Amino acid sequence: MKHFTFFVVAVAAIACLAAFIVPLPGHADRATATYLTEIPQGYRGWKWISSAHEAGNLNSLGAVLANDIAFKALQEGKYPFPDGAVIAALHYKHVRSDENNKVFGQAQSFVPGPPTNVQFMVKDSTKYAATGGWGFGHFQNGKPADALFMKPCFPCHQKAGGTDLVFTHYAP
Amino acid sequence: MKHFTFFVVAVAAIACLAAFIVPLPGHADRATATYLTEIPQGYRGWKWISSAHEAGNLNSLGAVLANDIAFKALQEGKYPFPDGAVIAALHYKHVRSDENNKVFGQAQSFVPGPPTNVQFMVKDSTKYAATGGWGFGHFQNGKPADALFMKPCFPCHQKAGGTDLVFTHYAP
Repeated sequence: MKHFTFFVVAVAAIACLAAFIVPLPGHADRATATYLTEIPQGYRGWKWISSAHEAGNLNSLGAVLANDIAFKALQEGKYPFPDGAVIAALHYKHVRSDENNKVFGQAQSFVPGPPTNVQFMVKDSTKYAATGGWGFGHFQNGKPADALFMKPCFPCHQKAGGTDLVFTHYAP
Repeated sequence: MKHFTFFVVAVAAIACLAAFIVPLPGHADRATATYLTEIPQGYRGWKWISSAHEAGNLNSLGAVLANDIAFKALQEGKYPFPDGAVIAALHYKHVRSDENNKVFGQAQSFVPGPPTNVQFMVKDSTKYAATGGWGFGHFQNGKPADALFMKPCFPCHQKAGGTDLVFTHYAP
C-alpha cells in the first residue's frame, strides 16, 4: 500500500473488444490457427493484475490474471513481455449481491455472477510474429472461438494506450 | 471455465464494513491488539478469489486474494479454514477509464483508481479465539487502524452468509 503511483503497464483487460461483444464462438480452425485453441493450464491460480467493470450491454465484472513470467515483468516494469508470458481475462456477469446488501443495509454491492468467457494473451514472438508476438484466445464454455471471431483482436490491441499491446494497468 | 456452479464459499469481500466506511485509522494499540498491526508479507502476489464493486458512497472496485493455504481450502471446499489461511481485500476507487472508452467508442469501462485501503483476515484459532479464530486487519497508507476502528469487524462478519465468517464467494 506504499506504492501509490500506477505503473503504466498495459494488460489485456478487455482483450479482443469485438470478440467480447459477439457472444457465440464457433469451432476453431485448428489447422491454420494463429490464435489459441487450447486453454492454458492452471490460469485460475495465477496472480491478480487488476479488476475490470464494463457497464452497458457488456454488464461485466472480471479480473485480469498473470502467470509468473508476466507478473514478474509487470512488477519490474520490463517490456516488451518476454516469451512465455501469459495474461488471462476472466469475465462474469456484474450482478447485485443481495446477501451483502442485507448486511450493508443498502443496495450497493456487486459481485461476479455467472461466468461469460475467459480470454488470453500468450507471448511467443516467433509463433505469433504476425500479431505483435501475442497469440490471442477467447473461450466460452471451454470452447475456442473461430478465426473470424478472433480477427479483430490484434488490430484492436494495437490501439491499447499501454505497453506491448496490453490494455490493463497493474493495480498497485 | 467448465465449472459453472459457484462454490458457496465465503471470503472477506467487504471485510469490516464499519471499518470500511470510517476513512481515517489512527495508531494501533500494539500492547493489547487482537487485530493486525503489521501487513502480511507478499499479499500482492497472492491468488485471486473474486472481484468486488461497491457503488454509492464507497465507490470502490477491488479484489479479494488468498494465500496458498486459504486458496487450497477454497478450491477444495474444506472449512473451517485451517490456521495459516490469510485473505486480503484490496480496495481502490472505482474510476472511469477514458483510455478504454476511447477504444470502445462509448463510456462503459471502469477500473481501479487510487488505492483506498487493504484489509486482511488471518486464521489463527488460538491467537484469535475470541473473534472466531480470525484476526482482522485494516491498513491505510500502510498504517493499521486502531482498536475502536476494528471493533465492528467480528460482529459484522458473524452476519456473513457464507462459510467461516467470510463474505466473498470464490469465482469459478
